[in-house]
Amino acid sequence: MTEKVAELGEFPLIDRLGQVLGREGRHPAGLDLGMGDDAALLQSRAGCQWAVTCDTLVEGRHYLPSYLTAFQLGRRAMAVNLSDIAAMGGQPRYALVALGLRGDTLVAEVEDWYRGFAAALNPWDAAIVGGNLTRVKGGQFISITLMGEVAVGRALRRSGASPGEVILVTGYPGQAAAGLRLLRQQGDRAGLEYHPLVQAYTSPVPRVAEGRVLAGSGLVSAAIDLSDGFLGDLGHLCAASGVGARLWAKQLPLSPALGAATVEWGDDPVQWFLGPSDDYELIATCAAEQAETVKAQLSAVSQVPVHQVGVLTDQPGCLELQDAGGSLSQLGIRGWDHFANGGQ
Amino acid sequence: MTEKVAELGEFPLIDRLGQVLGREGRHPAGLDLGMGDDAALLQSRAGCQWAVTCDTLVEGRHYLPSYLTAFQLGRRAMAVNLSDIAAMGGQPRYALVALGLRGDTLVAEVEDWYRGFAAALNPWDAAIVGGNLTRVKGGQFISITLMGEVAVGRALRRSGASPGEVILVTGYPGQAAAGLRLLRQQGDRAGLEYHPLVQAYTSPVPRVAEGRVLAGSGLVSAAIDLSDGFLGDLGHLCAASGVGARLWAKQLPLSPALGAATVEWGDDPVQWFLGPSDDYELIATCAAEQAETVKAQLSAVSQVPVHQVGVLTDQPGCLELQDAGGSLSQLGIRGWDHFANGGQ
Repeated sequence: MTEKVAELGEFPLIDRLGQVLGREGRHPAGLDLGMGDDAALLQSRAGCQWAVTCDTLVEGRHYLPSYLTAFQLGRRAMAVNLSDIAAMGGQPRYALVALGLRGDTLVAEVEDWYRGFAAALNPWDAAIVGGNLTRVKGGQFISITLMGEVAVGRALRRSGASPGEVILVTGYPGQAAAGLRLLRQQGDRAGLEYHPLVQAYTSPVPRVAEGRVLAGSGLVSAAIDLSDGFLGDLGHLCAASGVGARLWAKQLPLSPALGAATVEWGDDPVQWFLGPSDDYELIATCAAEQAETVKAQLSAVSQVPVHQVGVLTDQPGCLELQDAGGSLSQLGIRGWDHFANGGQ
Repeated sequence: MTEKVAELGEFPLIDRLGQVLGREGRHPAGLDLGMGDDAALLQSRAGCQWAVTCDTLVEGRHYLPSYLTAFQLGRRAMAVNLSDIAAMGGQPRYALVALGLRGDTLVAEVEDWYRGFAAALNPWDAAIVGGNLTRVKGGQFISITLMGEVAVGRALRRSGASPGEVILVTGYPGQAAAGLRLLRQQGDRAGLEYHPLVQAYTSPVPRVAEGRVLAGSGLVSAAIDLSDGFLGDLGHLCAASGVGARLWAKQLPLSPALGAATVEWGDDPVQWFLGPSDDYELIATCAAEQAETVKAQLSAVSQVPVHQVGVLTDQPGCLELQDAGGSLSQLGIRGWDHFANGGQ
């Protein structure tokens, strides 16, 4: 258990990680050739197209090892990618994993990353089919490319929304940022593992089933996942669609845990809901008269609450918040910028 | 020209790189949605399967900026991936690029990486369809996932070779390692840009057209590209196929430039040919009686020389060299291990 990756070497390490996947991962029917050759070989399904995405987590910037177990880190890194496929309405299929590892990293730790990858992929019968291992001197990184399938013409884009449509959101945004604040305050995760806000940060559940229902419904005009923060990502959707948005303050789903924490901090929970936070929930838009149908279809497959939080307007670039008394305030977009913001 | 990526910010940088690709890259017919959404959307061609690969270059480990221009680095990073698709006999289609960038890196430099990516992809009408930008503090990295298409059942694997078959190789292996030695001796590229050995290192040409001919011929039993070194990669092919190999010393293609350099160094050029070197040439195996047909098919589409350098044996794990007098010596496999070896 104390063996380091530099002691084991590249090819034996690849073998060990392949053994983890052999025991704990899946081998989907369309996978003709997995790891071990120059490339993997994959079949496509008739009537489908591919949705492909790529996300990278860098140690010290996107995560600190003291906040997450190795298993949680692997599961979260894969969830970040699954969430992008979910936002397109896709079925996750195949992942490639590029790792940058320091030589003194424990082999057992990397094996736990792989257990986390498999745990995130297994519910969708998706599998790791390739990747790359390389040695780094500074911060380690995990870069994942994920391929998902979606029926031709059914994919959810950011660009299809129209004024007058309503805005739906799954779950309780803002919790991940609040959980990260708790971890930062304390400096590590000891005793915080089961705090609901910390779990929202360490163990996000990508809304893959929900995204597939949204795409399958044929009623949803646009969708995006929450990786930058509610306002930042809603802003991306509005920019792509050429619309504005008005949010109803009283309708925003604020979780009890977020409420309790913000009381303690003396903060406004609405600011935590709107601000930078990577919750991996989904925003979707649809005609107002279809909202109940969409929600009913979601509730048939998912326990995740869905709330109607606002309406799209014909004022591009304008995001505003309407309070209980009906007065409006302009909202500045404050999402996560990977260059302008500081690391963790 | 002095603007830094931290000054520009993530989303404007993505826009700028998208502009480079808009001007200098391709937009293949099967690409329904490129960069700018949660995922790209890609069509599959009937009768084809996907070959997917992933390779990462890390600054200080796989390259030094003083050895390569930014354009060369981008082109080489993509060539490394194109070579893997070539080794499967695939047609390159779509790439995703994950970059780790320091904040003080010049925007113009990253734009030149993208010009290099496009220059490598354009001959194959292939395109960058997504990726990820993140900030790092230490060594920068370029991690690319490349998807290629190959007719179902035609892909070249490492595992199909049989005893008695002959070993073919394209080009002149060993030159890249010799070029890297020249760069290391001097410490930078000044005045060495046009040296043939240095060009073999800075500007490898992936053998995509040749790989497609090899796969299309139906005569080739196995193939691999040279990324670790001739002996290391031949060893991978032999291990996957359960065979051994006997090389004929007099038949090894030693380039004049390698010959001249090794005379100066007092080295044996055969050791440079066999040893660690990433030349991105192809090794292929076929029945002895088909070798001339395969070579003729290659010469119809490619000027790259192809040599028959040995034969496969029924002694798994045994690689040997036969000299002009007929006597045999055992060869130890000495390829590149990304953890055991030092960086550049």
